[in-house]
Amino acid sequence: MKFSELVEQLTPGGMLESFSGDETLEIVGVGSIEAAQPGDLAFIESDRYRSYLSSTQASALILPPEEDLQQQAEQRGLAWISTTAPKSVFADAIGLFYQPYRPGPGIHETAIIHESATLGANVSLGAYVTVAANVHLGDDVCLGPNVVLYPGVSVGDRSYLHANCTIHERTQIGADCIIQSGAVLGAEGFGFVVGSAGLKRMQQSGFVVIEDGVEIGCNSTVDRPAVGETRIGANSKLDNLVQVGHGCRIGRNCAICAQVGLAGGVTIGDGVTLAGQVGVGNRAKVGDGVTASAKTGVHRDLEAGAVVSGFPALNHRLWRRSAALYKRLPELYQSLREIQQRLERDG
Amino acid sequence: MKFSELVEQLTPGGMLESFSGDETLEIVGVGSIEAAQPGDLAFIESDRYRSYLSSTQASALILPPEEDLQQQAEQRGLAWISTTAPKSVFADAIGLFYQPYRPGPGIHETAIIHESATLGANVSLGAYVTVAANVHLGDDVCLGPNVVLYPGVSVGDRSYLHANCTIHERTQIGADCIIQSGAVLGAEGFGFVVGSAGLKRMQQSGFVVIEDGVEIGCNSTVDRPAVGETRIGANSKLDNLVQVGHGCRIGRNCAICAQVGLAGGVTIGDGVTLAGQVGVGNRAKVGDGVTASAKTGVHRDLEAGAVVSGFPALNHRLWRRSAALYKRLPELYQSLREIQQRLERDG
Amino acid sequence: MKFSELVEQLTPGGMLESFSGDETLEIVGVGSIEAAQPGDLAFIESDRYRSYLSSTQASALILPPEEDLQQQAEQRGLAWISTTAPKSVFADAIGLFYQPYRPGPGIHETAIIHESATLGANVSLGAYVTVAANVHLGDDVCLGPNVVLYPGVSVGDRSYLHANCTIHERTQIGADCIIQSGAVLGAEGFGFVVGSAGLKRMQQSGFVVIEDGVEIGCNSTVDRPAVGETRIGANSKLDNLVQVGHGCRIGRNCAICAQVGLAGGVTIGDGVTLAGQVGVGNRAKVGDGVTASAKTGVHRDLEAGAVVSGFPALNHRLWRRSAALYKRLPELYQSLREIQQRLERDG
Repeated sequence: MKFSELVEQLTPGGMLESFSGDETLEIVGVGSIEAAQPGDLAFIESDRYRSYLSSTQASALILPPEEDLQQQAEQRGLAWISTTAPKSVFADAIGLFYQPYRPGPGIHETAIIHESATLGANVSLGAYVTVAANVHLGDDVCLGPNVVLYPGVSVGDRSYLHANCTIHERTQIGADCIIQSGAVLGAEGFGFVVGSAGLKRMQQSGFVVIEDGVEIGCNSTVDRPAVGETRIGANSKLDNLVQVGHGCRIGRNCAICAQVGLAGGVTIGDGVTLAGQVGVGNRAKVGDGVTASAKTGVHRDLEAGAVVSGFPALNHRLWRRSAALYKRLPELYQSLREIQQRLERDG
Repeated sequence: MKFSELVEQLTPGGMLESFSGDETLEIVGVGSIEAAQPGDLAFIESDRYRSYLSSTQASALILPPEEDLQQQAEQRGLAWISTTAPKSVFADAIGLFYQPYRPGPGIHETAIIHESATLGANVSLGAYVTVAANVHLGDDVCLGPNVVLYPGVSVGDRSYLHANCTIHERTQIGADCIIQSGAVLGAEGFGFVVGSAGLKRMQQSGFVVIEDGVEIGCNSTVDRPAVGETRIGANSKLDNLVQVGHGCRIGRNCAICAQVGLAGGVTIGDGVTLAGQVGVGNRAKVGDGVTASAKTGVHRDLEAGAVVSGFPALNHRLWRRSAALYKRLPELYQSLREIQQRLERDG
Repeated sequence: MKFSELVEQLTPGGMLESFSGDETLEIVGVGSIEAAQPGDLAFIESDRYRSYLSSTQASALILPPEEDLQQQAEQRGLAWISTTAPKSVFADAIGLFYQPYRPGPGIHETAIIHESATLGANVSLGAYVTVAANVHLGDDVCLGPNVVLYPGVSVGDRSYLHANCTIHERTQIGADCIIQSGAVLGAEGFGFVVGSAGLKRMQQSGFVVIEDGVEIGCNSTVDRPAVGETRIGANSKLDNLVQVGHGCRIGRNCAICAQVGLAGGVTIGDGVTLAGQVGVGNRAKVGDGVTASAKTGVHRDLEAGAVVSGFPALNHRLWRRSAALYKRLPELYQSLREIQQRLERDG
C-alpha cells in the first residue's frame, strides 16, 4: 500500500493532524518501533520509545504532534503521520494489513446439535462442537472446535467462541462478544452451607449474563449464583485466567486484567480498571471509574473515581508514601532506638 | 407449591423454629432478597440484608429467630419461616424448586472407550469422550462432552466430570465428586533438577487421589508428584483456578477458594479455609481449622486453629493493627522527625 | 533390579562418590523418604529429611557425602549411595523404574487434518484432534485427544501437546517441548485502545514463539501481540496457570512457577526464577539470574542477579527486615507515643 493511500485510509478516524513523506513509498506491514523492518509502519507514543527514533528501521512512523520528533524523522528520511492518538491510529493501521482468522459459515459434519436448538443465518460450527437442548445461536455466530454448549444457552449475533470453551446451562451471551479458548462460563458458583456433616452444596439455580461486546480471556471462569444472575456489562473486557464469582455484577466498559479474582456478590461500576492479580472480597462495591493497580486487595467498598493500591487497598498516593517508608522501616526503627537511648541516658 | 407444603418439606431438617403466613399462599420460586419477585421465597441472614425487609418483593422470607424481623414481615403481609440457620434452610428450599442439569444414563455413539476399560451400571458418557486403557468407572458416573481420561484412571460411583476436563494417568477419583469444566487432575508436577545443561525434568511417577465428596472448580489443576501421591481429603471443596502442587496433602472438609496456590509438598489439615488468592509455600504445614484471609502468603507452618492474614502471614488481629499503622506511616515518620528536631534543638 | 545394577546404571552420570550395601539386594521401586516401602530406593538431600533416617522403611538410600549419615544407614542395615547431588541422582533412578505414558505413533481415525497440513514421520494424533490449514508437525510429534491447532501452527520434532490444548494461529513451537493439558498458546493479547465508544480491540497480528525444550503448564496462557512476537526461550519451564502477556520475552532456562502473571511487553532474562503468584508489570525488564520469591510484585526493572521479595519488590534481605518490623508496628507506635508523652511532660 502506498503511503498516500495509507494516509487516506487512516484519515476518516479524524485524528490525523498532518503528515509528510514520499506519497509513492510502499508500506508493506506494521511493526513495533524496536523490531520494524524497512517497509513497515511503526508508532511512538510514550517517552519510553522516543530514543528508538534514531535507530528504527521502519519506513514510516505515527508520531504525536511534536515538531522535534517530526524533524528527526525527516532527517532520517522517514515518512511520518502526526496525531494526538498515535496508538489508536496505529490500531487502525494494523487493521489495514491484517485480518484476524475467523472460519467462514458452515457446520462441520461432526458438530452435534440437539434437535431443539435454533441456529441463525451463516453460523460457523467447528469440528466436534456439542450444542445441547434449547440452545439458541444468533446470526453469524462462530463456534471453534470442541466448544460445548450446555442446555438453554443463547449466543447473540456475530459472537465468536474459541476452541475448547464450555458454556454452562442457561448462560446468555450477547452480540459481538469474543470468548477466548478454554473459558468456562456459567458453571456452579462456590456456594456451600456448613452443616453437621461438613460443607453441603448449595444448588446454583441462577445463570450468567454476558452483555454485548464483551470479551472474556482464555481459561477465565464466570460462575452462576444460587439465585439471580452474574452479569458482565456491555463492552467490558476480561483478560486471561480471571475469576468472576457467583452473583457478581460488572458494569460497562471495564478492563479486568489477567488473574484478577472477584469473590461472590461483588459489584463493579462502569469504566473500572482492575490491573493484574487484583482481588475483590465478598460483596464489596467498587464505584464507577475506579482504578486499582496490580495486586491490590479490595475488601471494602470503594467510592467512584478512587485510585487504589496495596493490600488492604489504600489511596494510591498514600500507598506510595507508606510503601516508600516500609522499606525504610529498619532505619526508622534505628532512629527510634537512638532516641530512646538518649532519653534514658538523659534520665 | 403452597406455603404449607413448603414448611412441611423444610421441617425434616429440624432447624425450623416457627413460621407464620397464609397456608394457601403459592410459592413459585426462590430469589435473593434484593431481586426476588412476587411469589418468591427469599432469606435474610446477616445484618447487611435487613434493610431490604422494607422493600423486598418476595412473598415469603426465611428469617433468623428475631421477633422484630418477624413483626416487620407481618406488617408487610409477608409469610415467614424462622430458623437459626436461614442460609441452610434456603439452600434446602432451592432444592425444592430447582434440580441441576445432569444427563441421563447412556453412552454417546462418539465416545471412544478402550476395550480394557470397565464401566459400572448406568454411566453417562457425553459426546467425544475419550476413555483410555485400564480406566474404571463406577456406577452412575457421568462424563460431560470432551472429557479425556488417560490410562489407569478410576472414578467412583455417582461422580460427575464436566465438559473438557482432563484426568491424567493413574488418578483415583472417589465417589460423589464433582469435577468442574476444564479442570486438569494428575498431570506432571513442576519437578526439575538443575543440571549442567539447565533444568532437567524429574519424572513424576506418583499419582493423584481425590477422596469421596470432593469438588474441584473450573480450570483448577492438581499435579501428581515424582513419587507417592497428591491427596485431597473427603468432602473438601476447591473453587476455580486453584493450583495444587505435586505431593500436597489436603485434609477433609476444607474450603479452598479461587486462585489459591499450593506449592509442592504442602500439608493442609482438616476443616481449613483458604480465601481467594492465598499462597502456601513449599512443604509448609497448615494445621486443622486454620483460616487464612484473602491474599495471605503462608511460608511457615501454622498451628491448628490459627487465623492469619497478610504476607508474610500474621495472626489476623496483629495484622489488622499493623495494617492500620502501615497507612499511618507518613504520619509516624513525621512525628519521629519532629522529635529528632526537638532533641537536636535541645542539644 | 539388583542394587549392584542400580549403582552401575546411575554411575554414568558421574556424580556418585561411593556406595555400600548388599549387591544382590533387590530394589523394586522408588519412594519418598517418609512413605517408601521395603524394596524402595529413597533419597535425603536437605536437613529437613534427615530425621527420617531412623524410621524410613526404604531398603536403599541416596545420601549426601556425609559419614554420619552413611554410618546411620549402615547401622539400620540399609544400602546407600553417596553423591553431591542426591536429588539429581534420584531423578535418574526414577527413570530406571518408571517411563511416562506416551501414546505410540499413529493417527486416530477421528483426527481431522486439513489437506494443506504437513506431518513428519511417526506422529501420534489422538482422538478428536483438529489440525487446521498450513500446520506443520515435525517427526515424532504427539498430540493428545482434543488438541486444536489453528492455521499456520508449527510444532517441532518430538514435542508432546497434552489433551485439550489450544494452539492459536501462527504459533511456532520448537522441538522437545511439552505443553500440558488445557494450555492456550497464541491467543489474542489484551490490547485495546480507549476510544469515544469505550474500549476498542487492537488487532493482534503477531505470534508466539516457543523455543526448544520448553514446558508450559496446565491451563497456562501465552498471548500473541499486536505486532512482533511473544517469545519463550529454550529450556524454560512454566508451571500451571501462568499468564504471559502479549509481547513478553522470556529468556532461557527460566523457572516460572504456578500462577505467575507477566503483563504486556515484559522482558525476562536467562536463568530467572519467579516463585508462585509473582506478578511483573507492563514492560518491566528483569535481568539474568534474578530470583523473586512468592507473591513478589515487580513493577520496575531489576538488575541481573537481584533477589527480591514483597510488593513493591525489595531486595530480599531488606524485605525480611522490613517485614519483621511490620509486625512490630504496634509496639513501635507505642514507643513513639511514650516518647511524645514524655517530651510533652518535660515541656
